[in-house]
Amino acid sequence: MKKDFYDFGLIGLGVMGRNFILNVADNNFKALGYDLDDEKVNALIEEGGNSDRVNATTELSEFTQGLSHPRKIMLLVPAGKIVDQVIEDLLPHLDEGDIIIDGGNSFFTDTDRREEYLQSKGINFFGSGVSGGAKGARRGPSIMPGGNREAYQHVKPIFEAVAAKYKGEPCVAYLGPKSAGNYVKMVHNGIEYAMMQLTSEIYDVLKKGAGLSNEELHEVYSKWNKGRLQSFLVEITAEIFEQKDDLTDGYLVDAILDKAKQKGTGKWTSQNAMDLGIPIPTIDVAVSMREISALKEERVNAESVYPKSEIESRPKDELIVEAENALYFSFIMAYAQGLHQLANASKEYDYDLNLSEIAKIWRAGCIIRAELLADISEAYTALPELDSILISPIFVSKIKETLGGTKKLLTFGMNNGIPLPGVANSLNYFYAYTSGRLPLNLIQAQRDHFGSHTYERLDRDGVFHTEWEA
Amino acid sequence: MKKDFYDFGLIGLGVMGRNFILNVADNNFKALGYDLDDEKVNALIEEGGNSDRVNATTELSEFTQGLSHPRKIMLLVPAGKIVDQVIEDLLPHLDEGDIIIDGGNSFFTDTDRREEYLQSKGINFFGSGVSGGAKGARRGPSIMPGGNREAYQHVKPIFEAVAAKYKGEPCVAYLGPKSAGNYVKMVHNGIEYAMMQLTSEIYDVLKKGAGLSNEELHEVYSKWNKGRLQSFLVEITAEIFEQKDDLTDGYLVDAILDKAKQKGTGKWTSQNAMDLGIPIPTIDVAVSMREISALKEERVNAESVYPKSEIESRPKDELIVEAENALYFSFIMAYAQGLHQLANASKEYDYDLNLSEIAKIWRAGCIIRAELLADISEAYTALPELDSILISPIFVSKIKETLGGTKKLLTFGMNNGIPLPGVANSLNYFYAYTSGRLPLNLIQAQRDHFGSHTYERLDRDGVFHTEWEA
Repeated sequence: MKKDFYDFGLIGLGVMGRNFILNVADNNFKALGYDLDDEKVNALIEEGGNSDRVNATTELSEFTQGLSHPRKIMLLVPAGKIVDQVIEDLLPHLDEGDIIIDGGNSFFTDTDRREEYLQSKGINFFGSGVSGGAKGARRGPSIMPGGNREAYQHVKPIFEAVAAKYKGEPCVAYLGPKSAGNYVKMVHNGIEYAMMQLTSEIYDVLKKGAGLSNEELHEVYSKWNKGRLQSFLVEITAEIFEQKDDLTDGYLVDAILDKAKQKGTGKWTSQNAMDLGIPIPTIDVAVSMREISALKEERVNAESVYPKSEIESRPKDELIVEAENALYFSFIMAYAQGLHQLANASKEYDYDLNLSEIAKIWRAGCIIRAELLADISEAYTALPELDSILISPIFVSKIKETLGGTKKLLTFGMNNGIPLPGVANSLNYFYAYTSGRLPLNLIQAQRDHFGSHTYERLDRDGVFHTEWEA
Repeated sequence: MKKDFYDFGLIGLGVMGRNFILNVADNNFKALGYDLDDEKVNALIEEGGNSDRVNATTELSEFTQGLSHPRKIMLLVPAGKIVDQVIEDLLPHLDEGDIIIDGGNSFFTDTDRREEYLQSKGINFFGSGVSGGAKGARRGPSIMPGGNREAYQHVKPIFEAVAAKYKGEPCVAYLGPKSAGNYVKMVHNGIEYAMMQLTSEIYDVLKKGAGLSNEELHEVYSKWNKGRLQSFLVEITAEIFEQKDDLTDGYLVDAILDKAKQKGTGKWTSQNAMDLGIPIPTIDVAVSMREISALKEERVNAESVYPKSEIESRPKDELIVEAENALYFSFIMAYAQGLHQLANASKEYDYDLNLSEIAKIWRAGCIIRAELLADISEAYTALPELDSILISPIFVSKIKETLGGTKKLLTFGMNNGIPLPGVANSLNYFYAYTSGRLPLNLIQAQRDHFGSHTYERLDRDGVFHTEWEA
């Protein structure tokens, strides 16, 4: 194998890794893969064709010697201890100034720890989330790198070439120092959880409330995907309803068990938002609903105790309009919450994030890509210090015009036993965030009453305590 | 000062500590306090009267020498590093078999670490949550100890004497090994967050929807407190509405700023429930609402962008009935979620919790004490392995008869811009938990479509993947 020859190295030749490296090669970079698994290495060599463009090896020293300087080595291996192990294995083979890029969903504090450790060894480390699934990796993902700004210049041409393009602009940008990239990807996934939950609630209400068939659901979601709801998740949802089942006569979606798994990034988003003190209830409840879904036996048992009553039948056209309103309204709330979290994380962790730029690189390639993101990017370009997109002039009319339909849909769901927790939390979030006065004065009174925790007042500064009369 | 004389030692003579020690002395135990602060020591000595019953010192060696063996030393100091510091200071003065009891809200993993560390030194360590606020500490709190079962026998007579009594039964019990006590107290606080949020939402809707005055609110909550809603939080809420403001002519509750603070135990409950995979959305959103409340300036600003529209006026009697239904229904859901979490934590952390016993010791003394807990205790006595109180015969009719009013109240709030996130999450939790089939089959389809994450099927075992057609 040629030495100092390949522009880009990739460790971990699973589906994502193989697709990513082929994408790199397609863009006229010479790419070298490494995996311990012979089969994966051979599969890549075969698929890559010309070994001057794509090659692979099971020998780590051959791999590192094959790369030009500074080495740019991306890891696409499972998050966790494996990342540390691969780094340790690599270190003896690296030179100062080399670059390691973790493309997995590592927890952001792990990235901070690794970056500091590798900095002490003269190695640049990037936590760099990649979104778009296997197809995205092959055709153009959205990439979210964070780390040393100068070192990023070496990676930039490759990432910009392989990334998805939105109207010609690459969906990748240097996001900030340390774990900024992983953090942004984590929140991206939190928003993804919310959007998936919302599409599934809307599916439920259309099916139960107006008896839409899978064909009709396919048509509805397809049509929505041509309008303001245009997004990857709505698009694939439309496709899902069309998919026939190989094992039965019916549609595949009806045969799938309603237990949704999770890998933890949504949970991390919620847990960390609580540490930051930022409310993201639409995302939180999407996490809860995956948990409830996992309790299948308990649910089946509980339904036998509370048999479902008949659902009032709604005219299809009417319910579809309300559902479209509610989904659009709730998508806005999910993005608003995630971006609110990013704005605060940026201060807390000194990421100095550019939210307009982040919305831009989410416009194509990634799972949460949607027409809405162009508006979001514009909102933050106009007002970079915007507290929330809810108060951006770009969003006010969108929210006002979908509020009515959202209320109607929720009222219908609520009165007919159809759980719509994502939509409900979106609406209540909106109501609470736009309430200058909330009833939590009572909570402060309670805390002072039973625990002498003190309270503040509306009419004067200071901290007060009252000896409450029983 | 007499040596080997006092039955019980207490470190940290703040309000809670002073009250707790006086309570111990009232029950014919000889109690010795320790604090670095002269003033607090003197205040206790003065209030205690007879130094053969209550004494205090600023000298640690005098303190430890004054205690009989095995020493029983309770810490009522702020959670965190101070606990570790106090333990280190104490250690040189202790003998094998002595007992340290942490009465604060320490995070449960800290308790596990301390218990293990102290065990290696021959000292017994108890994490033992105390609930009831300052008044509870004085008159009878609910105490939740966890640690070594044998060592607990030394503490038991004192704790049973000082604890609150429910129909003569003391509100304290040995809960389990290691951090079981702290964990139970943490979830207690999570439920407390939910109940406080719910009482405040109901206050809001009664005030805005039917124009109830503080006098009327006082009457409504007082009346409720005599019925099935009987609970400490409803009781003090009634008191709060009566309280006049010393600084103005009005009622105090109207002068209090609507920014609710938090000390973190509710947040920990939510974060840990997510680690366990147990849905507690009513508690989660209570945490979120405290966060939103803290964003006062953002809220005031956002309200100016979305001015509140007029609220439909409802007949008082009608709305009060719905509100009572919704509050009762939602209280049940808050307890159901917390106990569901405890049941799972018990398995995960090997606590071997007795949920009936826990509900019993919550029936008096603590902040979440309520008439409902007698029913809950009964439900778990009847069926110790109950998945959820929702399916207990004791609760089915209570839930069914309050469901209608809950729906009506929510519909009203939703249509009139009044945020009711706690009630909404309670209802949606109920709907989801009692749904044998949820629409999360779609989420599994989406995950398999974009990420090849595979899915399970309803009709056969195994793990499946589909090449989805675009």
